Amino acid sequence: MREVAIVGVGLTKFGELWSQSLRDIFAEAALAAMADAKIDKIDSLYVGAMSGGLYNYQEHLASLMADYIGQQGVPAARVESACSSGSQAVRMGYYEIASGASDIVLVGGVEKMWDADDGTFVLGTAADQEYEAYNGVTFPGLYAMMANAYMHRYGLTREQLAAVPIKNHKHSVHNPYAQYPFEIDLKGVLNSAPVADPLRLMDCSPITDGAAAIILAPLEIAHKFTNNPIKIKGVGAATGPIALHDHKDLTRLDAVRLSAERAYKAAGVTPNDIQFAEVHDCFSIAEIIVAEELGFFEYGTAGKAIAEGQATYGGKLVINPSGGLKAKGHPVGATGVAQLIEATLQLQGRAGKRQVENAKLGLTQNMGGSGGSSVVHILEAING
Amino acid sequence: MREVAIVGVGLTKFGELWSQSLRDIFAEAALAAMADAKIDKIDSLYVGAMSGGLYNYQEHLASLMADYIGQQGVPAARVESACSSGSQAVRMGYYEIASGASDIVLVGGVEKMWDADDGTFVLGTAADQEYEAYNGVTFPGLYAMMANAYMHRYGLTREQLAAVPIKNHKHSVHNPYAQYPFEIDLKGVLNSAPVADPLRLMDCSPITDGAAAIILAPLEIAHKFTNNPIKIKGVGAATGPIALHDHKDLTRLDAVRLSAERAYKAAGVTPNDIQFAEVHDCFSIAEIIVAEELGFFEYGTAGKAIAEGQATYGGKLVINPSGGLKAKGHPVGATGVAQLIEATLQLQGRAGKRQVENAKLGLTQNMGGSGGSSVVHILEAING
Repeated sequence: MREVAIVGVGLTKFGELWSQSLRDIFAEAALAAMADAKIDKIDSLYVGAMSGGLYNYQEHLASLMADYIGQQGVPAARVESACSSGSQAVRMGYYEIASGASDIVLVGGVEKMWDADDGTFVLGTAADQEYEAYNGVTFPGLYAMMANAYMHRYGLTREQLAAVPIKNHKHSVHNPYAQYPFEIDLKGVLNSAPVADPLRLMDCSPITDGAAAIILAPLEIAHKFTNNPIKIKGVGAATGPIALHDHKDLTRLDAVRLSAERAYKAAGVTPNDIQFAEVHDCFSIAEIIVAEELGFFEYGTAGKAIAEGQATYGGKLVINPSGGLKAKGHPVGATGVAQLIEATLQLQGRAGKRQVENAKLGLTQNMGGSGGSSVVHILEAING
Repeated sequence: MREVAIVGVGLTKFGELWSQSLRDIFAEAALAAMADAKIDKIDSLYVGAMSGGLYNYQEHLASLMADYIGQQGVPAARVESACSSGSQAVRMGYYEIASGASDIVLVGGVEKMWDADDGTFVLGTAADQEYEAYNGVTFPGLYAMMANAYMHRYGLTREQLAAVPIKNHKHSVHNPYAQYPFEIDLKGVLNSAPVADPLRLMDCSPITDGAAAIILAPLEIAHKFTNNPIKIKGVGAATGPIALHDHKDLTRLDAVRLSAERAYKAAGVTPNDIQFAEVHDCFSIAEIIVAEELGFFEYGTAGKAIAEGQATYGGKLVINPSGGLKAKGHPVGATGVAQLIEATLQLQGRAGKRQVENAKLGLTQNMGGSGGSSVVHILEAING
């Protein structure tokens, strides 16, 4: 198996991008990544996107995007796994290079969510439609049930829950790509509109347009493209029950734990080796459970630890230095790729005022639905 | 790069499957493939599907299907490339095994098209929405323009065009999985309802529900699962312009030619080595152009050759022994996988009354849109 490195990254501003089309934003990110790797030609393309069909009435996105980034002719496929589509696409690109079939693979993620007629309905298609959505449950509702179960079992307080978005918004202030790069305070969270009890608006990641792209290459030739390649040291993916009612325990996310175990094993590292992580904080309770499943904190303790500053600069590790899904934004298909970009920038020392000191090993965790799928990548700085 | 083999296949009946759900038909095909390979556990899953979102209001299909086939926990991703989704999913599974990351990969394709509110609109999302569909062009319209251009340039007659569905329906009679396993005659084609001139209803592949699944494994251990593994000898994929107006020549399909060149090169064979091919006859004109791009006939001659019996039993090679998309049916995400199943059955000598004699090398060609993407697989019998 050939080793694989990230040799270029490109990102659009996340937000409400009314003046650009779906293809525009994908091309912007893809061409930025190609410029970063100083290339004008790729061997193969993957596009991570959750629902070009329902958001934009456009499927066949990989063919479309190959055409619009001037790479017509290359093999191209779209990869979908709800909100983990982007990281799944990275996984496919990784295998294609590892197998020896291709050298230079562009993996992009994109979603233009503001175009949707009914965005809540579209997101609901990541759940079990026939048993969940058709009975009226939406994603905030599903995560609210998890939050209630967790608070009941572990005594997590409403204030501790609020510590997650407060931290992530604080991180986002120094991220020029973030959708909401401003701080919020406890009062702001607790007084924000109720969405699904106990979750309020400031517990929920937003609706976002955005695109992200990375260039992958075999590690052995990575220095042709950058003097600072980042090695993909381990990849782990897993599925869990697509329906929340099939979870054995509402306070756990089995797919996250399993994907992390596989990635740690592949990379030969442990949670204690990680200096920072980009994780899937689609709702504030998600970051708490995910941080536990990734092995950063014991079960039942992550909420308290985050509230005490253990997941920010100066703590045990920095979780979501980019601002996370909550403050950076969550264009679902782009999110997984954007997480790898933040990790790359951190490991290359290019993260500006949000730089994590001495970052050598970073982790990304991207999730679909209420834990129906999860992908973990472990990235390593190999220079300096 | 490890060599990869097909060690099990499973298929549902194609047709209007009103009494089964999307997950039901996928599970039926997947479990049949697992039984064929005598396994009860897989390492990884791919699901090819064009639009679970628009057809069934269900995304996140790979997570859902992993769950419903009793394989919760495995890595899983859905792959989409419009009507070439199935073969693209096979390509991903091929890379995952070739890289050494996994051993036993189930690749399934599925589409339940009769559930759609507006099936013609959904298929239109495989075209360039903003420039084609929004201006009123549908897929029959796009292929009708190609047919008119071809007839004008090469003098193809309406009767020669009809020879394609007549041949494919004749082949389908012996396929127990076919949607329309009956013969049609010239009068029947010429008197069928006009759809988009010169194409009539009997030139158009139907709306179909169906699922197909194969089990892939490294060739070196393939005999653990079957005494007759089929080697994937070459894979080629390519993109072309997603919009028909960007084709340099309306009578050509560049992506098909390019994907075939790549597959022939990878396999080290030529078109003359192939005894049969399953190709993408979404419309009768498509089979004619595709047969030329695959190198079976000179440009401008395939219509005449097919009408003269050169693409059926006793001719140069057999094209679409299964009945093709026209008669077997075209559940878009399943089609590419079903093509590989027909090729496998032929190469294993399991094709019954539609068996191609001395079949050693078969080819499959699966296309998205009006040539926006194409995938070619070359399969080889390694026993007997």
